[in-house]
Amino acid sequence: MMKALKFDGKTLEVRSAAKPQSPDECTVRVVKSGICNTDIEIVRGYAGFTGTIGHEFVGVVEASPEIPDLVGRGVVGEINVGCGICGLCRGGDERHCPTRTVLGIKGRDGAHAEFLALPARNLFEIPENVSNDEAVFAEPLAAAFGITEQVVIVPDTRVAVIGDGKLGLLCLRSLSGLSENIVLIGKHPEKMRLGEKSGAETILSCDTAKMHGRFDVVIEASGSESGFSTAVDIVRPRGKIVLKSTFHGTPSWEAWRVVVDEITIVGSRCGRFGPALDLLAKRKVDVADLISDEFSLSDGVRAIAAASAKGVMKVLLNNN
Amino acid sequence: MMKALKFDGKTLEVRSAAKPQSPDECTVRVVKSGICNTDIEIVRGYAGFTGTIGHEFVGVVEASPEIPDLVGRGVVGEINVGCGICGLCRGGDERHCPTRTVLGIKGRDGAHAEFLALPARNLFEIPENVSNDEAVFAEPLAAAFGITEQVVIVPDTRVAVIGDGKLGLLCLRSLSGLSENIVLIGKHPEKMRLGEKSGAETILSCDTAKMHGRFDVVIEASGSESGFSTAVDIVRPRGKIVLKSTFHGTPSWEAWRVVVDEITIVGSRCGRFGPALDLLAKRKVDVADLISDEFSLSDGVRAIAAASAKGVMKVLLNNN
Repeated sequence: MMKALKFDGKTLEVRSAAKPQSPDECTVRVVKSGICNTDIEIVRGYAGFTGTIGHEFVGVVEASPEIPDLVGRGVVGEINVGCGICGLCRGGDERHCPTRTVLGIKGRDGAHAEFLALPARNLFEIPENVSNDEAVFAEPLAAAFGITEQVVIVPDTRVAVIGDGKLGLLCLRSLSGLSENIVLIGKHPEKMRLGEKSGAETILSCDTAKMHGRFDVVIEASGSESGFSTAVDIVRPRGKIVLKSTFHGTPSWEAWRVVVDEITIVGSRCGRFGPALDLLAKRKVDVADLISDEFSLSDGVRAIAAASAKGVMKVLLNNN
Repeated sequence: MMKALKFDGKTLEVRSAAKPQSPDECTVRVVKSGICNTDIEIVRGYAGFTGTIGHEFVGVVEASPEIPDLVGRGVVGEINVGCGICGLCRGGDERHCPTRTVLGIKGRDGAHAEFLALPARNLFEIPENVSNDEAVFAEPLAAAFGITEQVVIVPDTRVAVIGDGKLGLLCLRSLSGLSENIVLIGKHPEKMRLGEKSGAETILSCDTAKMHGRFDVVIEASGSESGFSTAVDIVRPRGKIVLKSTFHGTPSWEAWRVVVDEITIVGSRCGRFGPALDLLAKRKVDVADLISDEFSLSDGVRAIAAASAKGVMKVLLNNN
């Protein structure tokens, strides 16, 4: 048996649960896990998931039936597990398999536990010079840097990132190596200072009125309707808006402007782990200063509450 | 003086107006003009335009101060006129110049008149084997085929066109030479027969429930909110939705699906005239059967009413 932070649809609690064991998948001993806004949304009942929550982790492979060589390695893991046989999976896109499971999000117990299970193909060994406190950011950093799989960003691309939360800052930091013209638009001066550290200009969202049509690429990472409407306002004709945050409900939008200005809106959810680990290994993105607090897994419920508080950035859980 | 179909913000009427004369621009004697849904929307007060309406035309150059050689030529015309000095204009994108005028739509008298004025650079000579009844479709056909400037369509691209109106049918016909897997989704069996003529499969919009996630590219040309929600439903993960019609108001949408399925939404307004004239000259797109009726310019008000009626496709005005 093991400890796991479980949500049953109503209540969140640390409970005793069966340790995962699979003839096909690796068993990973979780060293640390990170709390994502998605975890908080699950606990609020938005996602319909029940089970062990958590999908950001760093761990050590304890069992690996197919590739015994993996045992003992420090790893992070791609969270989507496709069926392996549909057209999308065969085309290399397990992340969009219609019957996929997703660690701690859909049909698969997650990472806020002592152990988790994932197929060997989902695991990525942590480079030697990357610490656990850095590697635990691999999943959100992959999601942030996944933007580059969908939109071309070169040094003179004028980029705006809307949203000064964890995701916005990771987008800003991972893309600031590509564009020399990147701006952070946010609402919280204390969070925006974390953006300034990466050399970006920062602008309060109330000051964007004069920026109409100025940006080639606008990344919406605030998850707010006002963020989306700011994005439509400040993107140039034929520019691109990357939707990085999911919205709840059905925001309304001025579709006519998207047509008349021939704007492209790109939905963007996740990204590849290899490039994200590379950013960390080459010290191109600093993440450690985004950690606000760390709790023991036994204090998981309190940790989720702490992560939900205003102004808090990344909260970690550990298995010490 | 000349006759022109003018809208003053309240009333539409054929009135006497000054013949356009410009030291810089060509004067074109309009032979025929086509009524677009945008004309109807202007008359309903949606666009805030006052003046001579109409932007689809075929005519003969009567005066050309800068390039005298154009006089007497049969032409069609690009409707956007940029300032010529801003960054977008210098980059070759007059169509998105923020201070552009647009024939019969924004700051410039239009084509439902005996004469109109446009810069010489906006005029395209009609190929010899293209009739006036075909050439008058150059503008909407350019808009339809403009999709290919924004989205790659190859023979095995699964394409759905939503909307069996004029624009939907022009999209269908102009793209069916590129994809062998193109489907028209509409509501009107009699209009959908016009789609079948170009070899496309047709599906009633009430029958799309089983087509979830099936198409690589979905073109929304119905202008209805239900069309947009069908598009989100039937596009595959990482597929593209081309918004070809403007919506009024602010439709609401399930933004989370666009993010989770990493869908791209591409606003698409206009396209280049050269490729459109080429489609007509090479007999790749048939348009003549889309003409429902033709009126004299003097009967312009009646013509607009006729074009607004259900089931009516293209209505032309002539200057005979």
